[in-house]
Amino acid sequence: MSGPAATESVPDTALGAFLKMWSEVVDLGRASALLAWDQETQMPPKGNAGRGQVQSTLAGIRHARLASNELFDALERAAEEAEEGSEAAAQVREARRTVDRVRKIPTELAKEQALASNEGHEAWVNARAASDFSLFEPALTRLVDLKRQEAELLAGEGGRPFDALLDQFEPGATEAALIPLFEKLVGEMTPIVHAVAASGKEVDESPARGHFPEAAQLAFGRRVAAQMGFDFEAGRIDLAPHPFCQGFSPNDVRITWRFDESDFRPALYGIMHEAGHGLYEQGLPMRFDRTPLGEAVSLGIHESQSRLWENLVGRSRPFWDWCLPIFKEHFPGAAAVTADALWPALNTIRPSLIRVEADQGTYDLHIALRFEIERALFAGSLDVPDLPDAWNQKIKEYLGLDVPDVADGVLQDIHWSFGGFGYFPTYTLGNLINAQLFEAVREEIGDLDDRIARGDFALLLEWLRTHIHSHGSLYTAAELVERATGAPLSPDAFLRERRRIAKEVYGVG
Amino acid sequence: MSGPAATESVPDTALGAFLKMWSEVVDLGRASALLAWDQETQMPPKGNAGRGQVQSTLAGIRHARLASNELFDALERAAEEAEEGSEAAAQVREARRTVDRVRKIPTELAKEQALASNEGHEAWVNARAASDFSLFEPALTRLVDLKRQEAELLAGEGGRPFDALLDQFEPGATEAALIPLFEKLVGEMTPIVHAVAASGKEVDESPARGHFPEAAQLAFGRRVAAQMGFDFEAGRIDLAPHPFCQGFSPNDVRITWRFDESDFRPALYGIMHEAGHGLYEQGLPMRFDRTPLGEAVSLGIHESQSRLWENLVGRSRPFWDWCLPIFKEHFPGAAAVTADALWPALNTIRPSLIRVEADQGTYDLHIALRFEIERALFAGSLDVPDLPDAWNQKIKEYLGLDVPDVADGVLQDIHWSFGGFGYFPTYTLGNLINAQLFEAVREEIGDLDDRIARGDFALLLEWLRTHIHSHGSLYTAAELVERATGAPLSPDAFLRERRRIAKEVYGVG
Repeated sequence: MSGPAATESVPDTALGAFLKMWSEVVDLGRASALLAWDQETQMPPKGNAGRGQVQSTLAGIRHARLASNELFDALERAAEEAEEGSEAAAQVREARRTVDRVRKIPTELAKEQALASNEGHEAWVNARAASDFSLFEPALTRLVDLKRQEAELLAGEGGRPFDALLDQFEPGATEAALIPLFEKLVGEMTPIVHAVAASGKEVDESPARGHFPEAAQLAFGRRVAAQMGFDFEAGRIDLAPHPFCQGFSPNDVRITWRFDESDFRPALYGIMHEAGHGLYEQGLPMRFDRTPLGEAVSLGIHESQSRLWENLVGRSRPFWDWCLPIFKEHFPGAAAVTADALWPALNTIRPSLIRVEADQGTYDLHIALRFEIERALFAGSLDVPDLPDAWNQKIKEYLGLDVPDVADGVLQDIHWSFGGFGYFPTYTLGNLINAQLFEAVREEIGDLDDRIARGDFALLLEWLRTHIHSHGSLYTAAELVERATGAPLSPDAFLRERRRIAKEVYGVG
Repeated sequence: MSGPAATESVPDTALGAFLKMWSEVVDLGRASALLAWDQETQMPPKGNAGRGQVQSTLAGIRHARLASNELFDALERAAEEAEEGSEAAAQVREARRTVDRVRKIPTELAKEQALASNEGHEAWVNARAASDFSLFEPALTRLVDLKRQEAELLAGEGGRPFDALLDQFEPGATEAALIPLFEKLVGEMTPIVHAVAASGKEVDESPARGHFPEAAQLAFGRRVAAQMGFDFEAGRIDLAPHPFCQGFSPNDVRITWRFDESDFRPALYGIMHEAGHGLYEQGLPMRFDRTPLGEAVSLGIHESQSRLWENLVGRSRPFWDWCLPIFKEHFPGAAAVTADALWPALNTIRPSLIRVEADQGTYDLHIALRFEIERALFAGSLDVPDLPDAWNQKIKEYLGLDVPDVADGVLQDIHWSFGGFGYFPTYTLGNLINAQLFEAVREEIGDLDDRIARGDFALLLEWLRTHIHSHGSLYTAAELVERATGAPLSPDAFLRERRRIAKEVYGVG
């Protein structure tokens, strides 16, 4: 029998009335998110078609509410009432970001995009399987064209279309601000990568390889995530084809993992990465729950949290002082491994073709080339048919590799197949932000390395809660970084860290 | 990123236009059902509050659509167009059942019921823990009062209120039709139960007891369910506090189980029961998917499917010819068990206090007393404060037992705590229907027992698919039974089966 509705409190302000409407939009999004999580982790294979129908219905209802004049009017009344600089004003600001975006896109364009996205995804799957770019080219051309229309509508007169795409994932980000960051990154990282290659030095990765049974990897990963502070009473972990994190509320956050029984690194670092996302979601402010300010502020900030735990904590030398005995408890076969022998294998710098398999020493070069290609596509200086050549040339320039086929080249990522342009830079933003945050934490917590070496992550998590998680979307990402670290975002901290590792592991630089 | 909406086809009939609206109502129900399943099987404990909010929002949207004039008008237009006796007319009939019900209940009453239901459930939990009926009495009085108001509104002028309650769960069922069935049941089963007690004969249940590890019980249960025909590509099984079956579509049906490591029966028969429900859900007609006719026709029919597999197949002697070797594969400790020694332990007739733990020989007497008490409550011939006495008196009369406390008496079931009156009879209807169906199957499949003894359930399932599952709600439950068996529903087949077992196991009758 169906559950009863809760009693309702009557809001007595314009903001209260608006937030009541907004909370139902949030609930619809949460229902969709749960259905998507279930589809990835639990749903039996034949359930696909039915699930697509339910998702389409929920998305339609949510969209209609976001586009409704009723919601718009309630938001305008809340805006009139809100005092400048108040939390109410911040609620209005964040809600407007979403509502404006929805109202600026005509239903007809949204439908065409949905169709193109479905067809694009299918074409991409086929093209990748056949390693034949021409099978994807017409669909991608259409997707770029529709996305350009969307970007122009969103940017409005005098606005910059590509900035409108970036802003979807990283509010406030602009091409102009990102270009110097990426130029500096590429300028400093490419020589390191080339110098490492020229050194001829190979890291011995055998300490990271062996036989690591699935169940033991899960137990080990859960143990590490729990030690980080991930609350399994407010979260869970499941196997999935791709690792991801999905928060339904701060009290219900789900992460997924995958594994390779011959190498423990993909599972451990996947879990630490997703648990880092999960800690952010679990730390979002309950006082803003189901309101515009209750959400994570940007993908760059989100990625900074996952990468901080994965890379700056998990791949650090002190971490293994704590972790190695636990590692050996779970994998008795690794009894002879030492932290000194293992550490370099966690910090390789070795050019490779596939972004999601790239090490931390080369990852951002993969992102840089995607950013450059997207910019060129949307500036009209690159046409879709010329994409494979542009791709291969960049891979040669940055990583010194020849691309043997498009499946391992321009067709490797899913993002463009559904029109996800402007997304990639957030990965690198996450790296820059996490390094700058970590330097700030290190200054504040003098004995951070000692703590990490004891598995004591409590103060680190508290700092992240205080400076990042607990604000939700109250401040913009840029404000948040500056408030937390005392300086605007720059690539300097990240580059210092990269140079240190190149020197310690490869003796380069 | 959010998923795209599917392309839409434009319906060109009034029925098509109505069904398009209806399909979204179905989708909303399916989303809620998935959220409920997740809450029972997957959700971390702290997720409760947030989940309640999402469910309340979805239920509100679904209710608003069902109550809307837009839907009502579309239904009326479809009704005008539908030819008598056509499938279209059946679609209209089934939709009207739901829509009329929703439109007849004023929002104010629905809200009061939701509140009373929340409070009632909480009061029941406390009263049961304290074994103190007075803690539940005021809440139950309120629930009965509100349910009476609802029943009167639903029944309308000249209608019978209690019939309106029965009709929610068993469309077309009436008190007048059920009374003679129950009178005959009680009249014939009570003497059997008393004679068994008087015989002093005790069944040796030790072959069903021992140590049965959780993982082996699950593997064994899955094996049996798969043999029955439950499609694990279109379904799954998970642990939950209470066994249940939830279908989201014929292609995604989920069952749950629980276990007792000292007795294999609760898990095996729980799984066979839920897999029986699951086979019905998996067999519902895809051509009616997301329409009013796509649903199971009644709880009684549903329960006939679960009980047929659980009791008439799973507790039969031939079944164990096939099952015993598999049982022993999974439980090597049971190597010495024989089917002849085990079979009586699956067919005991022993009075007990708790319905959900009752054996098949006494179960329906538990239902009969609830039916009588509900009728008296709604006829005004029994007041809430007198419930415990009435209960205890019936238990004595039917089962010969004294009730030591209300926790094991009138407070044992959850149903009334949220206003679920009129539900209980469907359990017994399931028993009557399954016995009558099984006699018909047996006539048609001459070697049914031989097939069961080989684990060959294909023809049995095919018969159920043809005569029951594939019709969805096209025929009423009563029509379905008569079409499948050639006769209106009667308790005769069920009583024949009960007498046979009493004779074979206890030498009684």
